[in-house]
Amino acid sequence: MDASATPTEEMKRDPMHFTDRITPGGDWPVQAGRYRLVISRACPWAHRVVLARRLYGLDEAISLAVTDPVQEIIDDENHWVFTSRTGSPDDKDPVLGIHALREAYLAREPGYDGGVSVPGLVDVPTGHLVSNDFNQLTLDFGTEWTELHREGAPDLYPKHLRDEIDALNEEIYNDVNNGVYKAGFAPTQASYDRAVHALFARLDRLEDRLTRQRFLLGPTITEADLRLWPTLVRFDAVYHGHFKCNIRKLIEYPALWAYARDLFQQPGFGDTVNLNHIREHYYAVHTGINPTRIVAAGPDPAQWLTPHHREELGGRPFGEGTPPEPPPLPDRVPPVV
Amino acid sequence: MDASATPTEEMKRDPMHFTDRITPGGDWPVQAGRYRLVISRACPWAHRVVLARRLYGLDEAISLAVTDPVQEIIDDENHWVFTSRTGSPDDKDPVLGIHALREAYLAREPGYDGGVSVPGLVDVPTGHLVSNDFNQLTLDFGTEWTELHREGAPDLYPKHLRDEIDALNEEIYNDVNNGVYKAGFAPTQASYDRAVHALFARLDRLEDRLTRQRFLLGPTITEADLRLWPTLVRFDAVYHGHFKCNIRKLIEYPALWAYARDLFQQPGFGDTVNLNHIREHYYAVHTGINPTRIVAAGPDPAQWLTPHHREELGGRPFGEGTPPEPPPLPDRVPPVV
Repeated sequence: MDASATPTEEMKRDPMHFTDRITPGGDWPVQAGRYRLVISRACPWAHRVVLARRLYGLDEAISLAVTDPVQEIIDDENHWVFTSRTGSPDDKDPVLGIHALREAYLAREPGYDGGVSVPGLVDVPTGHLVSNDFNQLTLDFGTEWTELHREGAPDLYPKHLRDEIDALNEEIYNDVNNGVYKAGFAPTQASYDRAVHALFARLDRLEDRLTRQRFLLGPTITEADLRLWPTLVRFDAVYHGHFKCNIRKLIEYPALWAYARDLFQQPGFGDTVNLNHIREHYYAVHTGINPTRIVAAGPDPAQWLTPHHREELGGRPFGEGTPPEPPPLPDRVPPVV
Repeated sequence: MDASATPTEEMKRDPMHFTDRITPGGDWPVQAGRYRLVISRACPWAHRVVLARRLYGLDEAISLAVTDPVQEIIDDENHWVFTSRTGSPDDKDPVLGIHALREAYLAREPGYDGGVSVPGLVDVPTGHLVSNDFNQLTLDFGTEWTELHREGAPDLYPKHLRDEIDALNEEIYNDVNNGVYKAGFAPTQASYDRAVHALFARLDRLEDRLTRQRFLLGPTITEADLRLWPTLVRFDAVYHGHFKCNIRKLIEYPALWAYARDLFQQPGFGDTVNLNHIREHYYAVHTGINPTRIVAAGPDPAQWLTPHHREELGGRPFGEGTPPEPPPLPDRVPPVV
């Protein structure tokens, strides 16, 4: 997502503009090594796609391009760019040869002047953006890319749970994933109040649900967990203070906090998190709510590694599958402490 | 204190400008009903003086004038004013007959163009400001105003503890009371980092001290507690998020948090707190760090009333004295929940 929003109007997300799908034998065929996933480690919408890629074992099939968490102002808009500061030689992505993600948007649609967001899945041979549809990408990774799944890949979207997952995802999207943005960029006290109370009412209900079971749908991780968790992992570091979601910290919810640490400590989750990128991005980019651009110091990331005791609830995190191997070397994040 | 500071330069407090002292038989004589204490319920520097007034039982002798927590811009400066919105008929203090506190400064020193801060102790017959020296006022309430103390007034500044109290007050002033302002208004990342780490290092040491004993100097409340507590009572509501003091919340310090609740629940402390005034002031006035002026919702003030179990450490909160009676009716604050 483009995060340049300033609090001048109620936060409304544009529908995805590029919604082509990659399918076996389709116009955009499933093919190992053909596509590159452009993300920011800061962005929660990209994060869910990174998690799906990790859990299905698509790390080798779909390579990863990580932008600088601090966007660059180009033509008065914040843009995701590659910089040598964050590991891209000559300020370009070494595979796509571009500095700003918008070059892939423009390659696909010359004259495009809409928003440029991560995640962006780019066709390497042509340099064209294929999709920025973060809702569909995770589902397609699970259901269309099966031939390239690792051995032991979990089923994160089992048929018999899809209705329940879809319904829960909708609530989580409105009140939590997007809820924190609605609170953070609220243009009026009334719109902030609505958003922050809807957010915490939803967290209260999720707390209740997670008091009874290990993951959102039961004993096993599903697509719903992939969507909730990126917001939780950012909550105390940025949403609590910077977005004024301060009725409670995540650590004040016993079940949600233990659940979030449980996932953090699973292969495929914590190994995708860069809290420095998260903190730097939010505090530096949203000058409409943080004009000084000073990055807040807390909280201590070591908290994420403390025991959570969720094993006592039983469950099989990866169901019939197995945990993923560690990420390929180029995709590794710095240790949390 | 004037809170209009914007983060353009390192936070430095001006020395008090009006430091006249009221003493028995002095030029400004101690006299019941003669002086009026102008405060904001939002301001921690005023709060310590309100606490001293309550504990010594000077409520009837020195009347209280409470400004609107949201300052008014007059001649491009934020000014403390009386408004009908917050209980002053016709937007004037009914006793002093002024709208802005600066009128008492100007009455005292025509042409004065320095900062205007609360607390301000004003001579009612002439309307002249006598003192805005928040450090000296609490000490003088304890040592110069003794003839007007209530029966059972505690000794908050006992002679044998003064050196230790003074030394501790200095550390608390630099790192905590003023430390949160240095963090919140830091003009650079480096100055923020220095302030926030000094603040939490000091809180860590105070946590250690308060794990061993009930109050800062031992079994009994002293002047040092009056100075630390106003910062603690504001910590999670405004300093944690708005001033980016987010390494930990107060509630994450077991001893400091229980200590802060212990005091809150003592007569003379919680009955002086208006958390709505606190939240409104900070979020609405500091547009340099919160341009939207949206007031954050949390946390739940009911937390202040939860059991603290500090009685188990023993101690006599008021020493040889007794707790104060409830405040006079006009000085009452709304219940916390």
